[in-house]
Amino acid sequence: MRYSTKSRGNSVPTSSRVARVTPASGEDSLIARYFRPLATDPGAFRLDDDAAALKADGSDIVVTTDAIVEGVHFLPDDPPDTIARKALRVNLSDLAAKGATPAGFVLTLALRKADEAWLKPFAAALGEDAAQFGCPLLGGDTVSTPGPMMISVTAFGRVPDGKMVHRGGAKPGETVMVTGTIGDAALGLAVLKGGKVHAASDAAARTLLIGRYRVPQPRVGLAEIIREHASAAMDVSDGLAGDLAKLCGVSGISAAIDLGSIPLSDAARDLLSRGVIELETLIAGGDDYEILCTIPEDRVEAFTRAALAAGVAVSSIGTVVAGTSAPKFIDRQGREIALERLSYSHF
Amino acid sequence: MRYSTKSRGNSVPTSSRVARVTPASGEDSLIARYFRPLATDPGAFRLDDDAAALKADGSDIVVTTDAIVEGVHFLPDDPPDTIARKALRVNLSDLAAKGATPAGFVLTLALRKADEAWLKPFAAALGEDAAQFGCPLLGGDTVSTPGPMMISVTAFGRVPDGKMVHRGGAKPGETVMVTGTIGDAALGLAVLKGGKVHAASDAAARTLLIGRYRVPQPRVGLAEIIREHASAAMDVSDGLAGDLAKLCGVSGISAAIDLGSIPLSDAARDLLSRGVIELETLIAGGDDYEILCTIPEDRVEAFTRAALAAGVAVSSIGTVVAGTSAPKFIDRQGREIALERLSYSHF
Repeated sequence: MRYSTKSRGNSVPTSSRVARVTPASGEDSLIARYFRPLATDPGAFRLDDDAAALKADGSDIVVTTDAIVEGVHFLPDDPPDTIARKALRVNLSDLAAKGATPAGFVLTLALRKADEAWLKPFAAALGEDAAQFGCPLLGGDTVSTPGPMMISVTAFGRVPDGKMVHRGGAKPGETVMVTGTIGDAALGLAVLKGGKVHAASDAAARTLLIGRYRVPQPRVGLAEIIREHASAAMDVSDGLAGDLAKLCGVSGISAAIDLGSIPLSDAARDLLSRGVIELETLIAGGDDYEILCTIPEDRVEAFTRAALAAGVAVSSIGTVVAGTSAPKFIDRQGREIALERLSYSHF
Repeated sequence: MRYSTKSRGNSVPTSSRVARVTPASGEDSLIARYFRPLATDPGAFRLDDDAAALKADGSDIVVTTDAIVEGVHFLPDDPPDTIARKALRVNLSDLAAKGATPAGFVLTLALRKADEAWLKPFAAALGEDAAQFGCPLLGGDTVSTPGPMMISVTAFGRVPDGKMVHRGGAKPGETVMVTGTIGDAALGLAVLKGGKVHAASDAAARTLLIGRYRVPQPRVGLAEIIREHASAAMDVSDGLAGDLAKLCGVSGISAAIDLGSIPLSDAARDLLSRGVIELETLIAGGDDYEILCTIPEDRVEAFTRAALAAGVAVSSIGTVVAGTSAPKFIDRQGREIALERLSYSHF
């Protein structure tokens, strides 16, 4: 691990590897200038070493890793500050869903060039988020690539010994709950692409929805509450319908979901009521980064109260049922909607 | 963290995010088939969860991350098994130099497509190395990219509380030591590029040198010995001359290196004696993945004996001296060789 840009570029086949031992280059000093200030944890050793250390304190270390690729997970013209926040936050969202308190992260940046105008706002926003969520930079590797930009984050959290919350663990009779609202990020992407969602939204709605796509709100403040109350949890990153199916699969149970209970933003509800979109767009879309969990019935009230006290609204959307069939989605008329329709596919 | 290929490819701007909720695709099942068998640690939860857990056992967790990019750190036609081994081993090398015993790793794979003919030997070799070095796969993220392949590994090791070995810590009077031989990987790359090194080498030498470039030998067996004896250590990945300068910089000392003592393979020595290469090529080249360390004089004998017992030859190459100037390199005639010449650059 080293925080030096290896500036060999596309050079292996055509120029000497010896070029690697360059002077402390402009790129190196940019990295040091912008990323060293983020390495506030003593275990980061000021990014002067080959590795970082997470101190033993009796807790288990929860590890998660998610990468985002230009043109795949973010748009080439997304602002660098939102790219930075998204790269870290998608990982913080995983930690929160596992009941883990952030402890730090390492960053792999693959860049075409070390562009100060891009790196400066990227690092500044990353630093703000790292401070806000108590998740300092521990180290990283920066490599040059001739291809699209890629940002890979591996984040660490702490849980008391053995207390990580799993996807498995949901039991029949428990309540299926979700934080925040569902589908806004999918709509935000639709707005950015132009088309009917863009045309049908006013400026305020567009801003809100794009914000939800570009800058997820990881539910870090819920980590301890999830740990205390949830039998199973995961973050919703690939769409509520698909992710619920995964949770059910690992838990060996099924679920009955009341479509009318799925929490929607005013903007989403408005587009839905005007027939611009269908509910399927919302629950099969990705990038929500909300927490999906199952809560024993006698804990639903306490969970809801604790979450609200932490500033996060939670909604009951259905019930865990026995069986191994795909989750059932029930509309307002009591009809079961086939999963194919909900996901535009089958699982 | 999820071990599912996000198959949206280059699709964000042009197709619906909803396409993300695909069925358990051919790509997904390939990943499960080839990578799940590597997730032997209970903390990997069979790759069925969003995160892995490193159990609390009183040790500090040492974290290191290194990425390799196609066309930058490996050649497009390198065999998939050697790419896998290199991706893991460059990280194991960092852990060993820090005195850490491997505990596991997470893998981010950015691929143009999920190609079974490539993934199968890649995963098989990765699994062999994971087993050989006691470093199981804990999880990962696989993303599609329209650009060059990239493999990012974050590896974890354990050290007793506070016992990670640092770059800083070298003290005047200590002996500068290095494992194995230096410069072979740089020559291996030169062989692969054709040219004079290729022309001047016989088949056996070419095979040996290419092997050193493609498949480093991380000194995992030395971790505890480094921890016991070394005041400072790092792995040599960017060239001995440059990496020694970094160690000196962080330690706040300088060093006097006897060029004639730098350990060379027979193949390297032969090319050097015939004037095909200069010593500079060897000590400023990269990819050695040997350990550079400083050892108190009264421990040199015990360190050497312990390393040999672990199957690794170590060589004394010079002495730590007071001061903050760049390390001095002294030739057989007792002349100091300017650092510029040694690195084709200045630090």
